[in-house]
Amino acid sequence: MKMHNVFREMYNMNEFFMKKALEEAQKAFEKDEVPVGAVIVRNGEIIAAAHNSRELSKDATAHAEMLAIREACEALGGWRLLDCDMYVTLEPCSMCSGAILQARIERLYIGTMDPKGGAAGSILNLFENYHFNHKTEVIKGILEAECSQILKDFFKRKR
Amino acid sequence: MKMHNVFREMYNMNEFFMKKALEEAQKAFEKDEVPVGAVIVRNGEIIAAAHNSRELSKDATAHAEMLAIREACEALGGWRLLDCDMYVTLEPCSMCSGAILQARIERLYIGTMDPKGGAAGSILNLFENYHFNHKTEVIKGILEAECSQILKDFFKRKR
Repeated sequence: MKMHNVFREMYNMNEFFMKKALEEAQKAFEKDEVPVGAVIVRNGEIIAAAHNSRELSKDATAHAEMLAIREACEALGGWRLLDCDMYVTLEPCSMCSGAILQARIERLYIGTMDPKGGAAGSILNLFENYHFNHKTEVIKGILEAECSQILKDFFKRKR
Repeated sequence: MKMHNVFREMYNMNEFFMKKALEEAQKAFEKDEVPVGAVIVRNGEIIAAAHNSRELSKDATAHAEMLAIREACEALGGWRLLDCDMYVTLEPCSMCSGAILQARIERLYIGTMDPKGGAAGSILNLFENYHFNHKTEVIKGILEAECSQILKDFFKRKR
């Protein structure tokens, strides 16, 4: 069935890009940073890839999503990330969710949810019910087990 | 009356720092950027001062508050801006409000409110009712008329 194959291909593509975000999270893990990674994709191409580096860069704003957005703005030469999707291993906080809306990201693919700080449905949902002049579609649960496991491994090691 | 003088002095101090934020907003105005300015103060000293530069820097995250936070983190050599207050001419958006909480800013002094995008009471209030592991005190209406006027002048010129 043709339709079935299209959906299967889209699904695989989402897993492919989330794996790239996970590779970024792994880099953070190795630097003893909370392992969160993000990539930004435009027309099937990764234009930015970043991982959390708050501790090493000593910068409160250096979450994976923020760094990826800044990199993508530089790559595209403008602050509007039109037709861009973000894949991020962990549900974004308020700062990052706000930045995703500011940058006009089209679709946000989330690995696992963050019940303690997530702003895409956990402690609040900035992507619903607010009157922003942009709407970002949110798709949850891409490679959820892997995205969750890397965080569990990190915090287990920390204890 | 001694007590009266203490309050008067505090009031004047807040106006003094908001004037510095307004000077930053004026710099943005002159560069044809939406005129918003912010300063971060620690122990009565300005450790960071920045203005919105989203257009010129082509960076969706380059709001005045974000740039000031990054500058202050650099000045203090860490991502926790403990004992720091921010003065900003316009109510912060979700991204900036989230960053203010992430950076552990102690007090946030706001000039004028932003009914279209403000996240400190206008379209939502990130500083209330959410379970962040930090609480920032919010004080509104410092030099409100001046902070509002510079924005009105800017958008009048744009039309």
